[in-house]
Parts: sequence; structure tokens; C-alpha cells
Amino acid sequence: MPDIGAADGRQRVIIEGVTPEVDGGRFPVKRSVGEQVVVEADIFCDGHEVLRCLLRYRCRGAADWQETPMQLLGNDRWRATFSVDELGTYEYTLVAWVDHFLTWRHDLARREDEQDIALALLSGAALLEAAAARASAADRKRLGTYAKRLRATGSATEGRALGADADLARLMDVYSERRHASEYERCLCVTVDPQRARFSAWYELFPRSAAATDTAHGTFADCEKHLPGIAAMGFDVLYLPPIHPIGTAFRKGPNNALVAGDNDPGSPWAIGAADGGHKAIHAQLGTLKDFRQLVKKAREHGLELAMDIAFQCSPDHPYVKEHPDWFRWRPDGTVQYAENPPKKYQDIYPLDFETESWRELWLELKSVIDFWLKQGVRIFRVDNPHTKPFPMWEWLIGEVKRTHPETIFLAEAFTRPRIMHRLAKLGFTQSYTYFTWRNTKQELTEYLTELSQDGSREYFRPNLWPNTPDILPESLQFGGRPAFLLRVALAATLGANYGIYGPAFELMEHQPRGPRSEEYLDSEKYQIRQWDLDRSDSLRHYIARLNHIRRDNPALQGDWSLRFHPIDNDMLLCFSKSHQVAPDEINTIVVVANLDPYNPQSGWINLPLTELGIDPDSAYQAHDLLSDARYLWQGPSNFVRLEPDASPVHILRLRRRVRSERDFDYFL
Amino acid sequence: MPDIGAADGRQRVIIEGVTPEVDGGRFPVKRSVGEQVVVEADIFCDGHEVLRCLLRYRCRGAADWQETPMQLLGNDRWRATFSVDELGTYEYTLVAWVDHFLTWRHDLARREDEQDIALALLSGAALLEAAAARASAADRKRLGTYAKRLRATGSATEGRALGADADLARLMDVYSERRHASEYERCLCVTVDPQRARFSAWYELFPRSAAATDTAHGTFADCEKHLPGIAAMGFDVLYLPPIHPIGTAFRKGPNNALVAGDNDPGSPWAIGAADGGHKAIHAQLGTLKDFRQLVKKAREHGLELAMDIAFQCSPDHPYVKEHPDWFRWRPDGTVQYAENPPKKYQDIYPLDFETESWRELWLELKSVIDFWLKQGVRIFRVDNPHTKPFPMWEWLIGEVKRTHPETIFLAEAFTRPRIMHRLAKLGFTQSYTYFTWRNTKQELTEYLTELSQDGSREYFRPNLWPNTPDILPESLQFGGRPAFLLRVALAATLGANYGIYGPAFELMEHQPRGPRSEEYLDSEKYQIRQWDLDRSDSLRHYIARLNHIRRDNPALQGDWSLRFHPIDNDMLLCFSKSHQVAPDEINTIVVVANLDPYNPQSGWINLPLTELGIDPDSAYQAHDLLSDARYLWQGPSNFVRLEPDASPVHILRLRRRVRSERDFDYFL
Repeated sequence: MPDIGAADGRQRVIIEGVTPEVDGGRFPVKRSVGEQVVVEADIFCDGHEVLRCLLRYRCRGAADWQETPMQLLGNDRWRATFSVDELGTYEYTLVAWVDHFLTWRHDLARREDEQDIALALLSGAALLEAAAARASAADRKRLGTYAKRLRATGSATEGRALGADADLARLMDVYSERRHASEYERCLCVTVDPQRARFSAWYELFPRSAAATDTAHGTFADCEKHLPGIAAMGFDVLYLPPIHPIGTAFRKGPNNALVAGDNDPGSPWAIGAADGGHKAIHAQLGTLKDFRQLVKKAREHGLELAMDIAFQCSPDHPYVKEHPDWFRWRPDGTVQYAENPPKKYQDIYPLDFETESWRELWLELKSVIDFWLKQGVRIFRVDNPHTKPFPMWEWLIGEVKRTHPETIFLAEAFTRPRIMHRLAKLGFTQSYTYFTWRNTKQELTEYLTELSQDGSREYFRPNLWPNTPDILPESLQFGGRPAFLLRVALAATLGANYGIYGPAFELMEHQPRGPRSEEYLDSEKYQIRQWDLDRSDSLRHYIARLNHIRRDNPALQGDWSLRFHPIDNDMLLCFSKSHQVAPDEINTIVVVANLDPYNPQSGWINLPLTELGIDPDSAYQAHDLLSDARYLWQGPSNFVRLEPDASPVHILRLRRRVRSERDFDYFL
Repeated sequence: MPDIGAADGRQRVIIEGVTPEVDGGRFPVKRSVGEQVVVEADIFCDGHEVLRCLLRYRCRGAADWQETPMQLLGNDRWRATFSVDELGTYEYTLVAWVDHFLTWRHDLARREDEQDIALALLSGAALLEAAAARASAADRKRLGTYAKRLRATGSATEGRALGADADLARLMDVYSERRHASEYERCLCVTVDPQRARFSAWYELFPRSAAATDTAHGTFADCEKHLPGIAAMGFDVLYLPPIHPIGTAFRKGPNNALVAGDNDPGSPWAIGAADGGHKAIHAQLGTLKDFRQLVKKAREHGLELAMDIAFQCSPDHPYVKEHPDWFRWRPDGTVQYAENPPKKYQDIYPLDFETESWRELWLELKSVIDFWLKQGVRIFRVDNPHTKPFPMWEWLIGEVKRTHPETIFLAEAFTRPRIMHRLAKLGFTQSYTYFTWRNTKQELTEYLTELSQDGSREYFRPNLWPNTPDILPESLQFGGRPAFLLRVALAATLGANYGIYGPAFELMEHQPRGPRSEEYLDSEKYQIRQWDLDRSDSLRHYIARLNHIRRDNPALQGDWSLRFHPIDNDMLLCFSKSHQVAPDEINTIVVVANLDPYNPQSGWINLPLTELGIDPDSAYQAHDLLSDARYLWQGPSNFVRLEPDASPVHILRLRRRVRSERDFDYFL
């Protein structure tokens, strides 16, 4: 018999069009612990027989697959769902086959001719007998009894009733003939991250500015004193720029000056000096022990410490002497400094990833992560990952997450979209976004709809920042206090993950280094700053309120439910998020924002009430969680007016009426 | 050194998002000889270096790849194109690398500091010397000379000029360092079919009705007499329903009667009798020699014969006795007849593709195709392919096309969309469509836009039929002559491939078997019919005109250029097709159709003139190729009025003004 190219030509069922599936299964999708994976596929067969389709899934390493039946949605589309309850990797795939018993059952029910039915009962008995041969002893007996009854009955009515018997169907389900089942050709993966990967609020702080006096260099011990305040604001990630020894060669002075003064501390990203490199601590900050203590104390305040990973070197970094082969030397014995056009980093050497010793280099870089994992760090904010090879990150993150699946990597790649997406696909847990520069109703609607609804949401988890030490956006330079209130409220509600470069944000720092510059004047990147955190105009209470609202409302703890709603004023933005918290309870938040920091704006919103869990025929309460005002609304269309100076944003929890007028608290 | 999972960590370039690519490369795309494949991909790298990206392609079996450089479209998207000039399979893939010479050249051009430039010239010289080591003797010398000049020059200006030298760039292009090039992980395929796969007009004819007298059974010799008339109508495929011996068991009588009279011929799809099965010829039609003669004579008239392949058996088929294991026997020793719900085929046994002897069965079915290939047949219209396993078709068509790439398979699967698409993906050259039931402006616009613009056009080639022996659609039952004119004109212009069930169409047969039936009354499926092809109201001249227009206008010979245009009357449909026939010449056809068979309709069309190759500021001529009327138009908006009784359709060729009033024939 010649080879005819098919392992088993009787595998007649086709499985295709599987979702979620990233790049033909090349990359995993992402979920956090406790989330669901809704799997769909086109499944069909030649002919008109009845199919059985199962979703199979397992935590990687488990011996056996869990199986759950898929439901037909129509048009040959099937769906099933599973939950991911453990950190690590889950696998899923599909299996389907022609079920001859279900086909027989379906046909029997529509037969009318008595002789046809008699014949069908005999065929059915044969199917049962075949199943009995595969069954346990007890079930074999039960199936045998059913088969005998099918063979013996002279009554079409009784025969049809037997065929429709639910207990028989359950039995036959267990012993269904899977011999020619089709398995989907790919085993797909889910990376299951901690919940903080999906829902987190980041606070960035330069530890060297944490001292109590104007002149002192801040220490880890000083940072500890700030923990209660940061925790009180409701943040749960504390992110520190690099804490390593800073080089002196080509050290930058204040405001990126090419020559530093004797007392200038230099940029923390110019990593490495005689004291050590990426595994050492800048002496003025404290010791490794102090650092471990900070990690521990932060955790006691509900704060996870995020460390900056910048794989680059000051010319004084020990690597430069110990591993000259990791750098690209020019004919004059120098190395071309790093650039991220138009930015120039004269104080930084890039690593040469095309070195013949690339394996040694990769291993050393991974050992840096391993070192800090040992000190208790579980979150890494990676600086400019797009200037290091993609295959290196895929390997490194994969290796780390294999042993430490609780680790979170945030990609700081403010670059072109394909590159940001590739980094997310290959393993970065979260990604910075263009939110920082999206201001108008159209910009925000288009971009956030893409982030929350496109297929890329399966792997790209956005983290929204209104500012960073590198970016003081135009909106904050010119919009005054209303712009700060607006931008942080948008970040905190549009994004389940968001962050601020803290002291500069809460104190509304808004002076740029020069016209058309997004750099902060007197940036902490090049000098120590003193912040009066108790200033009366600080936004800390407003930010605390925002984070409190986020923690109380599951709707704000994920991104996928985001929907924008019509409002008849282009200066007003209206959107909602919702989450089913119980079978009969939806947590729904509607945000209305005045994008104009200078003028009051008003308009009519239009809400899809049924989608949001509100009965369109009953009154409901819109409870502003920022101001505690309560509005009694009915129907989809309602009036809003926002004064930017008072509060440019409503964060409304929709409460449906649950009690009659005989009770006190009417709304849920 | 531990295994770090990457073959070469220095392959830094990422290639993804390749189009066209069907299901991650699982299936080939389709083209016809002479067409182009436009390949695009997202290609990028870490960092800011300059990339070189090449498209590689070859006719399968060729030893070497052809390479063509890709152009950057923006946003990391690259494109290149190749032509497929031979029947069979082409392969294509992509390769890309970081080009250090181009990067150096780009950097040199923007350097300003004299010392920087001096250093850069030395670095450049080193790149040239490395390339010289890979070069031919002559080129080595030339590169060496360039390198020496770079090292020797003291002038920044001269150095920069040298770096920008075009001849040097060409040399370095040849010897570019590809050591760390990334190859796309998949090799993608193109099935290259004959041109008739893209552009064909089918005519279906029951040979048994081809006799000159009312009572005689038509023969192949009778069919020969019809060839000049069919060719004169401009068709190029002559499709015959099955020509095999017809069974007598459960033979159907006229109008699908369950009992046949003694002289009833039965359905040609009830294949097989004592005389033989799928490799035999129904004796009343003639001999195998007569058949070969018909194939040959048809070809002399420019007609390719299409044969019906229906893999099913009358109970009298020799397979039933010789291979009882290919059928599923019920306990009473019978086989359940075939069904395609709600249709019942009491005179047909289905084959059991779950037989243990499936390999023997597949080989036998392939031998059927092989047999008819030997008789000269190159087109197969496959009956109900969706009731036979998908893997069987993929294997069978693949095997046939491997040795006979000129073969065309048309899938007659009027079924659910996923199933029709899978059949097209796995190898069917053309597919029947839902056109038969799409009548309104919205239906036609949506469906034809899907067929001509969606990604599925890469593999799904539609063939539009206004009627078939199985389908007399409602529109033809009630719309009178205007409906016939309209539907065939739409099929012939919306579809580069179309067909009619001939005599019944051209003679406007429109009586159904009963109310709400799409079956023809006195259908040729069950009885011999006599057709008066010379009837004065025959549509044959109109159809001839349509096919003539199709042959004269390349715009109508493909589907992908189809665009619908606004028109302010929902009973009027306006669309265009265009084709670039020379660098400065576009063949453009605009069709306006009155979808209302009962009333004249008028409205204003709105054409995107620049897209259609017409200068919006000049007058142009709309030449109706059906009526030969010529309209002088200017601008996008023009008035049309269509009388259904006269002609429900304009087929307008747009002619741009090429001569001044001093000449005679103004328009091209």
C-alpha cells in the first residue's frame, strides 16, 4: 500500500480558527491568577453527523489533561472556558470527533416510519454493545441491559424513549468512541502571572532625594520613612531608578550638562564604577542589607519594590576591563556612546550583542536578575529593552519565569508599535504606552479601544503613566492643577495598571528644561531634589481617593470591559468599565472627564444601560465616588457638567434600585 | 557552556506579520500564470541600525532562490513583489539582516565633528576590508582600493563623498555580511493555476437532451453539433453532468418520483450499473472513443470539457458487490441512502469513509480521476465534496496537481461558509458561491466585497452561477426576461468566473416544480428534455455579447479590483473593475444595474475618477459596450436611467480623452 500521506484518513473533523492564539501559537497569551480563558474554534466535519468537541487544558507539568465540553455558538463556532488558578504556564488544545451515538440519537428522534425505527433500534443496540466493550465492569452491565432492551422492544414509542434516555446518554458520553478523534495540531500556552500583573498602581521615587535635609544624599533608610505615606496613597508598587554605583567618566551635570561639578551625583543610569556594577549598590544609598530591609519593609506596607534594569555601562563599569569583548571598540580604542535618537548618552557605553562571546554575555545578564531575585526583588522595570536583542529577552524572561513565575517585567520601550508588541509577545508582563501623549477625545478613544479590544490584548498589558522622569508632557506643562487631576484620574481609570513619577507629579512640577522640551527643569536624573511632600496643594489626598476607588471597585481592576459612550461635547469623554462580581451583581463604573483644563463643560451622556446591568425602565443612582455626590437618573441620557478647578472628572458608580420606599438604603 | 536556547543570539532581526499567508502557512495561496504575488512583512530589529530585507522565491524544484530587495513602506512594514510564470508550485520566504555598511554610511552622512569623521572613516575602511575577504579577486582589489583611500584621506569632505559613493554601495551590497541573517521561519507556497482558473465562462449541458428529435437519447456525437453554438456564445468551459451508467434500483422518475417508469432514464448522479461505474460510460451516450472525440472537438472550439465527479453509488454499482466493506451495512443488510438535508437520494448509496479499507477506497477514487485525465479531461466539477472527508480531498487534489498542475477542480459545496472555505484552502481551484441567492444592493455589495477584498481571496476563487439544474432561484421564477438579463450580466461582470445551466437559462425556463420550490419543473435531472435553441426570444445573442465584452476587457478578467460606488437609488447598483494594461493605460469598466425587474429606475452615480484612471478635470466618454451608446461625462457625478425591458444593465467602458478636436477619434 503506497503512503497516502494521512496518518488516519478517518480523522474527519477539522479544527481551525482557534482563539486566543498569538502568531499561530508561537507566543503564549497572558492571564493573571483566577482569570478565565475563553477558547473558541471553528470545528466541523464532512457530512451531517453530530460532533463532540472538548477543550483540553492543564497546568504545565500535570500528567493529565482536564477536559471540558465545548458549546456550539452557531456557524460552526464552538466555545469553552477554563480558569487559570496557579502561577506559571497552562497549556490548552482541542479535540473533536464524530459521535455516532449522538448522531443515531438525533436521527432516531426524527424518524417516523415504524420499520425505519425498528431498524434504527438494532443499529443503536450495536453501538451500545461496542461501547460496553470499552466500559468498566459495572457500566458494561448497564450498557448491556440497555442494548438488550433496544433489541427486545417491539414498540417504536418505547424504543424512541429509550434512545432519548438521559442516563444512557451520560453513559455513552463516558465511553464515546474516540478512535478517530482529531486533535488540534498545536498545543497553545497561557502565561499565568500574579494579579498585580493585571492590576497595579506604581509610584516612582529617586531614593537619593529621600533625605530629610536639603544637602544630604538620601538612603534606603530614608526611603523607609516614606513607605507609610506612599502606602496611604494606595500604591502597591514602589519603583526605584537604578541603585548601582555611578561612573565618573563623562558624568553628566545638572540639566544634562556634559561636564559635571565635583559634587554632582551623575545619572543613576550611568551604571558601574570601581565599586562594582549591576550587582553592587551605590555606597551613599546604603548596603545590600539595607536594601533587603527596604524590600521587606515595603512589603509590610503592601508595596512591592520594582527595580530598574538597564543593561548598559558607564565607562568605569568593571565589565569594561574584565570583558572588553562585550563592547565594540573603535580604531582609536574608544567605544561609541549609547544613543536613543535624538537622545545622546555620553556617559554610557552600550553592550555589543554581536560579540562572539554573546553566550557569556547573556548568562552574565541573567545572573544580574538572579542576584536581585535572591535579594527578594520580584518586579523589574526594564530600561530601553528595544536596544537589546529580542531573542535575548525571550530567553532571559522565559528562564526567570520558569523558576519564578511570580516575577513581573515592565518594558520601558517608548518606540514604534511593532517593536513594543514584539517585546510584549516574547514575555514582558506589562508595557509602557503612548497614553502619555494621548489627550483629545478622539486620540484617547482610538488608542484605548485598541489597547482594550484588539487581539493584541491577549499579550500586551498596558501600564499608563501621565509622567515619567524622562517625560513632562505638554498637557502638564500648560494645563495647571486641572490637567494633573485629569491626567492621573484618566490613567487610574482607563488603565488597571498605571503609575506616576511620584513627588514631581503630586507636587505638580511643570517647568520644562526649555521651550519644546519634555525634560523636567532641574531633573532628578542629574541632581538631588528636595520635595516638600506636606505642601498644602499636594495632590496626595486626591490620588489616595483614586486608588481607594480602584481597590473598592473590581470594574477598575481589569481593562477588557472598557467601552466608550457617546456624549454631545467633544471636550467631554465618557467611558465605562464593569465586572460581574456575583451572578446577579455587576460592578459598573462610568467615568465622565472634562478634557478642557480651562473651562467648565457640559453635555448629555448616552449609556447602554442593559449592557451595564441597569434596568432601563427603573431609576438608578449615579454615585460620584470622588465627591460623594449622588445623582438620581433614569434612562440612558443624562446631563453632566464639570468644572475643571473643582474636579474635572466624575467617577460614577451606577447603583440599581434594590429596595422599595419602605426601606432605607434603596440602591445597591 | 549551558544551552541557552537560541541557535545564534546574533540573529537580531525579527520577521513577522507576513502576508499573504494562509493559516500560518498551513495552506498555499493561489495565483494564475502571469500574476503577481505582493509580499509584505513587519521587519525590525533592536537598536537603530539599517536593515536589508530580501524576498526569496523559486519555482518548486529549482535549486536556487531568486532574491529581490524589499522596500520600506513605513511603520516597519516592507514589501516586494514577484511574478509566477509557470504552472505548479512556487515557494517564497524572507531573509533580513543588520547591514553594518549601510548603517555606517547613514551615520557618516550626519556626522559633523571632524574628529568623529576621521574615526568613522577608519571604521568604514575596516568594514570594506572585511567585505574584501569575501569578494572575488577583482572586487577584492576594488574594495581594497576604496579602503586605502578611506584610510589615507585627511579630508572630511572627501571622506564623506567616498562613503556616499554609489559604486562602492553596489559592491558592498554584493558582499554584505549575512552571517547573522534572520530567515523567516516558514517557507510559504503559491499554487499556480492556468489562466482559466481565474477567468472562465462555463456552460452546463445534459448530453442526453442533445439529440435533434424529441424521443431520442442524446449522444456525444449530438453534443458535437452544439459546440459551434456554445463557442459562438463565448463560453470556454463545457460542463457535462455525470456520463456513467445509471442504476435501476430505486431509480427516480420525472420530478423526483420515487418510482420510475420503464422508459425513464433516471438521475445521472445515481452512478453505476451492471455495465460499470465511475470509469464507464452510459451506453446510450456513446463510447469512450466518442467521448475522447468530444473532448478533442470541444478544444478545437476553444472549449475545455468539465466532467462531473460524484463519489457515490447506485445500489447497482459494481463497488457494492466487489467492495462491500466500502459501505455501511445496517442490521437488515441494507445501506442507508444518501441525504443532503432536506434532500433525500433514495437511488444513491454513500460511501463509508470510516471503513477500515479507507486507503484502498482513496486510491480507487484517485484512480477514477487518473482514468479521466488519461482521456484528456482537465476540469472536474466535484459534486457535494463536503460530504466526503477533507483530508481525502487534500491528498487527492495534491497528488493530481503534482503531476497535472493544469487541472482545475470546482467545488460544488452549497453549504456553510467555514466548510466552503476549508475546501478552497485544501486545494479546490474554484468554488460555487451564494451569489445565486444574493439579489439586493446590500446583499450583493456585502457579499462581493467579501469575496473580492477579504483575506480569503488568497485561496477562495468564486464562480458565480445565476442558476444550476438544482437551483431555479426565486428571482428568475418571478422576474421575467429582465431578471434573466440582469442576473447573467451581474454574474459575468461581478465574477471573472461564472457559469450558467445553459439551455434552461438562455430559454428563460422559470417554472418551479411547486410553490416554494427551487427545483425546475420537469427537471432534466430525471428526464430528457428537448430545447428549441433557435427560439426567437433566446438570450443567446445577449450572452454572446457579454462574453465578448469580457474577452475584450482585461478589467473583467479578475476579481480583486472590484469596487462598489455610491448611487442615490437603492434599486441601482454601481461597481467598477479596472486593470492596468500598460504603464499609461488602465482598462476601466463601470457597471450600473437596475435591480428592479419591473420598473425603470434612475439616479446619480458617483465615481472616484482618479482611482479609475480618469482625469477629474477633463471630459471622458462612458461607452456602453452592450448598447454601443456613448455618453459624454465630466466629473464624478453623472445621471443614469435603466429600463428593465430594454436593458437592465449598462456595461460602460470609460475612455479618457486622448486627442484634441483637430483629430477624429478622441477617446482611448
